[in-house]
Amino acid sequence: MKNKSIQASIIIIGNEILSGRTQDTNTSTLAIWLNSIGVKVSEVRVIPNIERIIIKTVNLLRKKNDYIFTTGGIGPTHDDITASSISKAFGKKYQAHKEAFKILEAYYKPGEFNEGRQKMVWMPKNANLILNPTSGAPGFCVENVFCLPGVPSILKSMLGGLKDKIVGGDPILSHTISLKTVESEIANSLTNVQDNNKDVEIGSYPFFQAGKLGVSIVIRSEDQKKIDKCSTEILEFVNQKEIEVVIR
Amino acid sequence: MKNKSIQASIIIIGNEILSGRTQDTNTSTLAIWLNSIGVKVSEVRVIPNIERIIIKTVNLLRKKNDYIFTTGGIGPTHDDITASSISKAFGKKYQAHKEAFKILEAYYKPGEFNEGRQKMVWMPKNANLILNPTSGAPGFCVENVFCLPGVPSILKSMLGGLKDKIVGGDPILSHTISLKTVESEIANSLTNVQDNNKDVEIGSYPFFQAGKLGVSIVIRSEDQKKIDKCSTEILEFVNQKEIEVVIR
Repeated sequence: MKNKSIQASIIIIGNEILSGRTQDTNTSTLAIWLNSIGVKVSEVRVIPNIERIIIKTVNLLRKKNDYIFTTGGIGPTHDDITASSISKAFGKKYQAHKEAFKILEAYYKPGEFNEGRQKMVWMPKNANLILNPTSGAPGFCVENVFCLPGVPSILKSMLGGLKDKIVGGDPILSHTISLKTVESEIANSLTNVQDNNKDVEIGSYPFFQAGKLGVSIVIRSEDQKKIDKCSTEILEFVNQKEIEVVIR
Repeated sequence: MKNKSIQASIIIIGNEILSGRTQDTNTSTLAIWLNSIGVKVSEVRVIPNIERIIIKTVNLLRKKNDYIFTTGGIGPTHDDITASSISKAFGKKYQAHKEAFKILEAYYKPGEFNEGRQKMVWMPKNANLILNPTSGAPGFCVENVFCLPGVPSILKSMLGGLKDKIVGGDPILSHTISLKTVESEIANSLTNVQDNNKDVEIGSYPFFQAGKLGVSIVIRSEDQKKIDKCSTEILEFVNQKEIEVVIR
């Protein structure tokens, strides 16, 4: 049995991901960062910019998780409806945030803080700001729901300011062993190792690199000793089978 | 009001996506292909390799959508549990598929079709095969649920064989206008165009390219005339505001 770990879900809000036009990279950025502070990602949902779907998804997942992260839909255009939808999800008034207004008023040159930009300070009443060192406009959080922008470089720059708002567990550690083999050659031996080490997550991922076939075995746990034990058991059958370990 | 379109959801099964180790690209591949045959992606869920979650997610989404596509978890190792989970979701026996067995027996050299590889022919009873021109092992479908592998190059190679199994609607068309501006400059005008054209999906996406800020406006509809009308209205305010159109 695993200890109960701290869990988060990610909600990617954006028609551009669902149409395939844009490749989501925020999931990977957030997941790696969350793992490093001991938060495991339980689920990711990509949903369209439709108010009723945003409200329903946020209200369902925020009760099942310690944290929720949304990305996208907090800009100034008509399709940016995350802040108003989150207000409705929590039954909070959607209004201009005074501190956010001051931040953007100072950020722009005199006269440039126009009506379009002012939309970006509207958010649920009493929301906490998540500062944005790249482009001024802050994200926000309400209870355990953290709303971040969709532009990957801006999202990345805001993670530093989030760290003290999130209480994680032990960092989730991982070790990868890459082999010059195919999955079917090691499947049975790997099943034995997994059966001996039920509370460690062992994944097997085929790869093709520079014309070579290989398999990466990824061992994940909060406990380095358990990872080391698995690793030793895996290298034992790898040596027995005379499989080459490769560097990736 | 929109016409009811043909809808699909994608279920990405894989701990490696949730840990951030691997960047999912199958969503984008599937979404672009589905749009081209007139199927809209309503939702994507990334879930872990956990049987009860796979069963629950598949059974929920297959009732809400015309089609479901799963990716990942159909290889030979212990963490490949998609086929057995789908069997349980449908209450069907999980057993060796005769035709799949023959395909793989012929694919491998004599003696190489070992126990590990034989796992890949186990699937729900009476499943239909989805042929795999890259690496032999077929995917399968049961009713409206299509199970594909996680390796992107293999998944791509299998789409051709899927086309005659899926009945789509009119292809979803799109037109992109990229501008040298920022979103707040065009937000109000774009809202007006959206209000005049309620059944067309208009998205606004900021970009940074070679040090330049810009906005791509993406217009999406099954009807080229509606796209053209929106495009004309957008170019009207773009010209009025003397905003430069850029090629991306």
